[in-house]
Amino acid sequence: MFESAELGNKIDKETYDREVPNLREDLLNAQYDLSQQGRFPVIIVVGGVDGAGKSETVNLLNEWMDPRHIQTHAFPDPSDEERERPYMWRFWRALPPRGKIGILFGAWHSAPIVERVLGRSKSAKLDQSIEEIIRFEKMLTGEGALILKFWFHLSKEQQKKRLKALEKDPKTRWRITETDWERFKSYDRFRKVSEYFIRQTSSTHAPWIVVEGVDHRYRSLTVGRLLLNAMRERLAKKPAARLPEKKHPVQPRVDGKDVLTSLVLTKSVSKEKYNREMETWQGRLNLLTRHPKFKERSVVFVFEGQDAAGKGGAIRRVMQALDARVYQGIPIAAPTEEERAQPYLWRFWRNLPRSGRFTIFDRSWYGRVLVERVEGFCSENDWMRAYSEINDFESQLVLNGTVLVKFWLQISKEEQLKRFREREKTSFKHFKITAEDWRNRQKWKQYHQAVCDMIDRTSTEIAPWTLVGANNKYDARIKVLRTIVGSIESAV
Amino acid sequence: MFESAELGNKIDKETYDREVPNLREDLLNAQYDLSQQGRFPVIIVVGGVDGAGKSETVNLLNEWMDPRHIQTHAFPDPSDEERERPYMWRFWRALPPRGKIGILFGAWHSAPIVERVLGRSKSAKLDQSIEEIIRFEKMLTGEGALILKFWFHLSKEQQKKRLKALEKDPKTRWRITETDWERFKSYDRFRKVSEYFIRQTSSTHAPWIVVEGVDHRYRSLTVGRLLLNAMRERLAKKPAARLPEKKHPVQPRVDGKDVLTSLVLTKSVSKEKYNREMETWQGRLNLLTRHPKFKERSVVFVFEGQDAAGKGGAIRRVMQALDARVYQGIPIAAPTEEERAQPYLWRFWRNLPRSGRFTIFDRSWYGRVLVERVEGFCSENDWMRAYSEINDFESQLVLNGTVLVKFWLQISKEEQLKRFREREKTSFKHFKITAEDWRNRQKWKQYHQAVCDMIDRTSTEIAPWTLVGANNKYDARIKVLRTIVGSIESAV
Repeated sequence: MFESAELGNKIDKETYDREVPNLREDLLNAQYDLSQQGRFPVIIVVGGVDGAGKSETVNLLNEWMDPRHIQTHAFPDPSDEERERPYMWRFWRALPPRGKIGILFGAWHSAPIVERVLGRSKSAKLDQSIEEIIRFEKMLTGEGALILKFWFHLSKEQQKKRLKALEKDPKTRWRITETDWERFKSYDRFRKVSEYFIRQTSSTHAPWIVVEGVDHRYRSLTVGRLLLNAMRERLAKKPAARLPEKKHPVQPRVDGKDVLTSLVLTKSVSKEKYNREMETWQGRLNLLTRHPKFKERSVVFVFEGQDAAGKGGAIRRVMQALDARVYQGIPIAAPTEEERAQPYLWRFWRNLPRSGRFTIFDRSWYGRVLVERVEGFCSENDWMRAYSEINDFESQLVLNGTVLVKFWLQISKEEQLKRFREREKTSFKHFKITAEDWRNRQKWKQYHQAVCDMIDRTSTEIAPWTLVGANNKYDARIKVLRTIVGSIESAV
Repeated sequence: MFESAELGNKIDKETYDREVPNLREDLLNAQYDLSQQGRFPVIIVVGGVDGAGKSETVNLLNEWMDPRHIQTHAFPDPSDEERERPYMWRFWRALPPRGKIGILFGAWHSAPIVERVLGRSKSAKLDQSIEEIIRFEKMLTGEGALILKFWFHLSKEQQKKRLKALEKDPKTRWRITETDWERFKSYDRFRKVSEYFIRQTSSTHAPWIVVEGVDHRYRSLTVGRLLLNAMRERLAKKPAARLPEKKHPVQPRVDGKDVLTSLVLTKSVSKEKYNREMETWQGRLNLLTRHPKFKERSVVFVFEGQDAAGKGGAIRRVMQALDARVYQGIPIAAPTEEERAQPYLWRFWRNLPRSGRFTIFDRSWYGRVLVERVEGFCSENDWMRAYSEINDFESQLVLNGTVLVKFWLQISKEEQLKRFREREKTSFKHFKITAEDWRNRQKWKQYHQAVCDMIDRTSTEIAPWTLVGANNKYDARIKVLRTIVGSIESAV
């Protein structure tokens, strides 16, 4: 596949000098429109062979366009804050918001290729990374991003020549080190691995564009024009009119049995037993956080459930067992402006804990397939793809060694009514009940269906849901704590 | 001053059990009002003697209130990302937004005290830290924060007893290590240093509250009530009506001479000379970024100037000399929602570069004393205090080893008119000129005065302004690059 990037493509100086001023003006205008519309981000991924003009091109794009509105990120050795999170965390941090251009120099593709070339990873691992990257990029485009992936290529002979030329020129001599020649030795292997990688990760939504890197004019014009065309095409496209939703008639199982209706909601527990059990489990949880192995782990809890199902109360009982220094509680309400300018998972990524720490989400990314689905805040297509995006996200967490525990707290419709009424009566719980709660209650059936679908599609082996019948608060809290202790115990 | 915290204050169980439920309800309600009003953040600083109940109190506050809306931060060893920034960076990161409570466990006071106790810093250094902390806290309260600083105290005898008790109890044994006994040996010294520190940093806007730590009921009720009262008092206070501005009649110097009018605005430079000079200075700048010592430095550039003064053009010429991987351009427009919920300097702190990197601010924190002053976006009191706050900020940068270069680009009123008209004519510069530019132009005199004041008050020895006559773009750009090269050269 690199053959067509070894043809010796060239542009003469005259043509180049004639074309560039117009191209620049067009790019600037496109950049301005991008910013004005603020509808989508442009993500430019830069990869390829050493000496093929990667950094020159990145600098050139910054020179041609308004560099103040371009965010360029390179990814040298990860910082310790990055190392303690899943591999993709540092890239999530670097994503440009809607309306901006982000140039990612050596992005998520670099490590998998290099590791494989150096023989530090097996081909199965490479295939797994490929799979993850495809899905990640698909998610990004699903969220509206325009992704352009440029691969700068040189033949072996060309690379040798280029490295020598750089080495000879006093102005660029500093760029060529032992490491470069070391790497040159693995040219063939690098070519083979990256060819495979490029082929596999060239999906319809984010194909690689292989650019011959020898002639700087050819290279620059190619990249500039492709970028311009892609931006123009995308800017001209009207925001897709919301498709009429396919009617999903709520279809209760014919026997009326589903994961929720099968759940025992009420199990009474005496106050004595509750106190005894709480002491036991809170004590064990506290002890676990001081386990030496715990320092290398991080923990994420997800609490979902109907309004008044007792999420807050359960969360407080968990927090009571923890030193306040080691956890952050993240209540999920409407996203902030900065969060709205990013893919919906971004606000959860930004709150992932470091090693030895907990993040407790009170509501979570599952809002996408619950409230956003039921209320029509996103399209059917959006929430349908969210299931697999969420599974991907969670599998990255778990692979990173994070202990992930997800709870669904379920109460009956009668119990909810009782609790709503209580809240309205008690002055200091008054603020816990709003008109919205009553409105949500009217959609009980739709939520029921959404929850069943969610559990069916996202209760995976590595990240199962724990369903908690929560009509009895004592019983629910005991189950939550017992589950948490079990999960952490098996991890350390 | 610790005497009154060694009296053996106690609360009996009965009183405590009677008081707590009401206190909790009141705290929850105050927390709710805080969140609803969203007017100010509550910053709770926790310090004191080991074993005096610091972490117990932090946990208790989380238990009594809604922990999902409290952000608790502890500050163990800084991460590498933190070490590469000024000391205060990690605390800026942890500041709660308006409407939230942030508990900072061992905040900015810890290191200065500990360093002094261990004899790693001189008393002059401690005094300097004290000075900085007072000014920092004053800035926070100026920006609206409610700060409560609790110091938990134990006498030497009490501490010994407490450590032994903790050591004896199997549930708390893990908390006491060799280090604690090591530290206990320096009790007297710790007491002396912290007494001095507390006295010096107990300002009217953020006094320390010394709490006797022996009796947990006394300690808890004291903290809870003080917190409640402070929140209630503050919540009840109506937002201060904007005071009528003192009229600052624009007073040009009697001889009409000031730093701006004395500046030579026009110096013509031939295109040849410009090209030659640019090559020289850009080349030298590029070379400097590869200097081995540069890896330990970071660089911040500030570009200010009238509309159309050529900031963008100058910035681009600087960026051209740099590898796009090492800089971030930060154009300063209206703050985002998350930024608006923080002190005005927060958005600049969050963008400070790591070592070996540049941040280029296109407009900056000086907006406070320019546009915000002239347009009345903040009160006179706000922009008046900003001068010294900005000086503090910049001195922290410089002390951290950051190279800071600040440019004011000045053009004449006629030159601005010419450039505005040109922009209106040129299609691809069209978007650079708006109605606002014309409006700003009408306030030429007010801006002139604001700029003169700014330069007078913030051109310090460690962070001087470079004034650039910019009627001739070539001349201005050369001066900018030459200045930058000079500053970095003297730093590496």
